Amino acid sequence: MITKQQILDALSHVEEPDLKKDLVTLNMIENIEILPNKIKFDVVLTTPACPLKGHIEHACRNAIALFISKEVEVEINMTARVRAVENAQLKNIKNIILVSSGKGGVGKSTVAANLALALANSGASTGLLDADIYGPSVPIMFGLDGARPESTQTADGKTKIVPIEKFGLKLLSIGFFTDPNQPIPWRGPMATSAIKQLFNDTDWGDLDYLVVDMPPGTGDIHITVAQQYPIAGALIVTTPQQVALADTIKGMAMYQMEGVQVPILGIVENMAYFTPAELPDNRYYIFGKDGGKRLAEQNEVPFLGEIPLLKSVADAGDNGFPIALDKEDPVTQSFEEIAGRVAQELSILAATV
Amino acid sequence: MITKQQILDALSHVEEPDLKKDLVTLNMIENIEILPNKIKFDVVLTTPACPLKGHIEHACRNAIALFISKEVEVEINMTARVRAVENAQLKNIKNIILVSSGKGGVGKSTVAANLALALANSGASTGLLDADIYGPSVPIMFGLDGARPESTQTADGKTKIVPIEKFGLKLLSIGFFTDPNQPIPWRGPMATSAIKQLFNDTDWGDLDYLVVDMPPGTGDIHITVAQQYPIAGALIVTTPQQVALADTIKGMAMYQMEGVQVPILGIVENMAYFTPAELPDNRYYIFGKDGGKRLAEQNEVPFLGEIPLLKSVADAGDNGFPIALDKEDPVTQSFEEIAGRVAQELSILAATV
Repeated sequence: MITKQQILDALSHVEEPDLKKDLVTLNMIENIEILPNKIKFDVVLTTPACPLKGHIEHACRNAIALFISKEVEVEINMTARVRAVENAQLKNIKNIILVSSGKGGVGKSTVAANLALALANSGASTGLLDADIYGPSVPIMFGLDGARPESTQTADGKTKIVPIEKFGLKLLSIGFFTDPNQPIPWRGPMATSAIKQLFNDTDWGDLDYLVVDMPPGTGDIHITVAQQYPIAGALIVTTPQQVALADTIKGMAMYQMEGVQVPILGIVENMAYFTPAELPDNRYYIFGKDGGKRLAEQNEVPFLGEIPLLKSVADAGDNGFPIALDKEDPVTQSFEEIAGRVAQELSILAATV
Repeated sequence: MITKQQILDALSHVEEPDLKKDLVTLNMIENIEILPNKIKFDVVLTTPACPLKGHIEHACRNAIALFISKEVEVEINMTARVRAVENAQLKNIKNIILVSSGKGGVGKSTVAANLALALANSGASTGLLDADIYGPSVPIMFGLDGARPESTQTADGKTKIVPIEKFGLKLLSIGFFTDPNQPIPWRGPMATSAIKQLFNDTDWGDLDYLVVDMPPGTGDIHITVAQQYPIAGALIVTTPQQVALADTIKGMAMYQMEGVQVPILGIVENMAYFTPAELPDNRYYIFGKDGGKRLAEQNEVPFLGEIPLLKSVADAGDNGFPIALDKEDPVTQSFEEIAGRVAQELSILAATV
C-alpha cells in the first residue's frame, strides 16, 4: 500500500522552475487520495495562465514512476490559486497589473484588452479598468458604447459601481460615465479623484488580476495610482520607433523612482512589422526593427513578445470584438504567451516578496 | 501715359478668392512704378504659403490686359506680409498654430515638424514649440539630442531663452531642459508653469507662424494654452481608426468649449494607408479608410489632407531629418499643400476677425 508520505517524498523531487523550490515545500500538493491501484492529487499552481503547466504535470508523473512505481495509475488535477502581492487596500484583488506606455498610440489599450482576455480564458478571474481618462478605449473596443454601469449597496451600506461583465471580464471605463462627444478637460486633481473612484468605489468582487489600461505619459494619474495602490507590476508597451522608445525609457524610469517603485514585468513590442496578404513572406518593419527587444536587453527587463501591425487587430478593436476572442488567430496565441509570461513574472514576485 | 489710378482701377477687378474682396480694397497692391513701356507693382499676399499665388498673379495680368492694354509689359512682385490674429500678449508672433490630437501616437509631432518646415520653406519666419511636456519629440526629430539653448538679456533686463535655429526654423522643446532618460512626472500646476516659460520667457523674435506641438489629450496644458494665449487656430491630427476618431471628437470639442474657443483649422489624416515597394499600386488601409475625411465632413471642418504610413516618414523623424527637407519626396508635397491650406485658413480668419 502506497502512503501519503511516499507520494509527498516523490513529489518533493519536482521543482517549480520559476520559484526554484519543490512543489511540496511550496505547498502546491493538495487532496491526495489513495485508491487500490490509483493515486490522485491536485497540483495547485500560482496561476491558471502558467505556461509551465504541462511541464510540471509531466515531471510529477515521472517522479511517481521513478520513486514509487511505474504500475500505479496517476490522476493529477492541475489547478491554480493566484497568489496575492501584498495588498491591504484592495484586498479582494490579488494582482493589479498596469499596462503602460510612455508614448500614446502605441497600442497600449489593444494589449491591455487582449491580455485581460487571455488571462480570463486561462481560467483566472480578471477585471479590466480603463484608466485612460483622456481617451478611454474600452467602450469602443468591447462594443459598449453608451453603456452605463449600475450601482449596488454593499453590506456596510456603501454605494458601489458594478462593473459591466462581457466576454468573461469585469469591465470598467471612465468612458462609461462621460458623453463620448464631450471632452474631459480635467485638471490634475479632478482626474486623480475620478481615478480613485474607479478603484475604491467599485464592487470588483474577488479578482485574480485587475489589468489597468493607464493613460500614456507620466502625469498625475501615474503618480496617484503608483503611490496609493499596491501594484503588482507594470507591463510596458512600445513600438520599435526611436521617438516611441525615448518616451518608453522615461515611462519605465518613472516606475523605478523612489516612492513609486513598481516592478517592470517586461516590454511588449507592438506594430512590429506589416505583412501584406499578397506577400505573406515579407515583413515590412515600418517603424524599425527590434527596437523594443533591444530596449528590454539594455534595461535588463524581460522582453514579453511582439505583435505585428495587422488590420485584423485594428479592426477587431474598432468592431467591439478584441482579437483574442478569435482562438484561431495567430495573434491570439501571441497574447496567450504574453499572458503566460506576465502571470509567471507575478508568481515569482509574489513568492519573493 | 498710364496712370496709377488706371492700374488700381484695373486691379480692383481682381478678387482674393479666400477673402472675397478685391486686391485694392484689401490694400494688397504696393510700390506701383510706371516706366515707358512697362509697369511694375507688388502684390502683398497674406501668407507666402498662399496656394493661390499663381492664380492671383495670372488674374492681375489678365486685368491689366483687359482694362488697360495688352501691349504693356507687366512685372509683378508676388510678396507676402502675414496678418496677425489679434495678439496683445505675444505681439511679435503673428499666428500661433496648435497641432493637436485627441489620441497620442497618431503622428502629431511628425505633422507639426513638417508643417513648420513647409511654412518656413515658403518664406515665412516660423518657429516650432514642442509643448508635449510628457513626451517631447523635437530633440530626436531634429537631431538635437542633448542640445541646450542659450539665454540672452533683453533691453529691459529680462533673461530670455534663445530658441535653437535649425533647417530655417526656430526650435524650442521642453526636451532641451530635461534628461532624456528621466521621466517628468509633473503634476498639473508644474506642467502649466513649464509651458508658460516656453511661451513667455523665450526670445522668439518676429514670427509669422509659431507651430505648437501639443501633448495628446485634453488636460491642463490645453486649458492653459487655449485660455492664456491668443491662438490663431488648431490643426487636428488623427488616424482613420475608430478609437482614434473617438478621441479626436473630444479633442475638437474641447477647443470649441466656452472660454476656450480656438478655431479648428482642419483635420489631417495620418497613417492613411501603406504601400509596399513591391506592390506600388496597392494601398493597405490598415487602420480603416477615410475615417479622418468623414470626421471632417460630419463636423463641417476642412479636411486638409492625408499622409500615408511610410517607413521613410518614420525613419526621417528618427534620423533627425524630417521628411519635408527632401524636396523630391511626394510626402513633402502633401505637407506643402497642408501648409498652404493652413495659411489660407489663417488669412481668412485674420481678415474676418
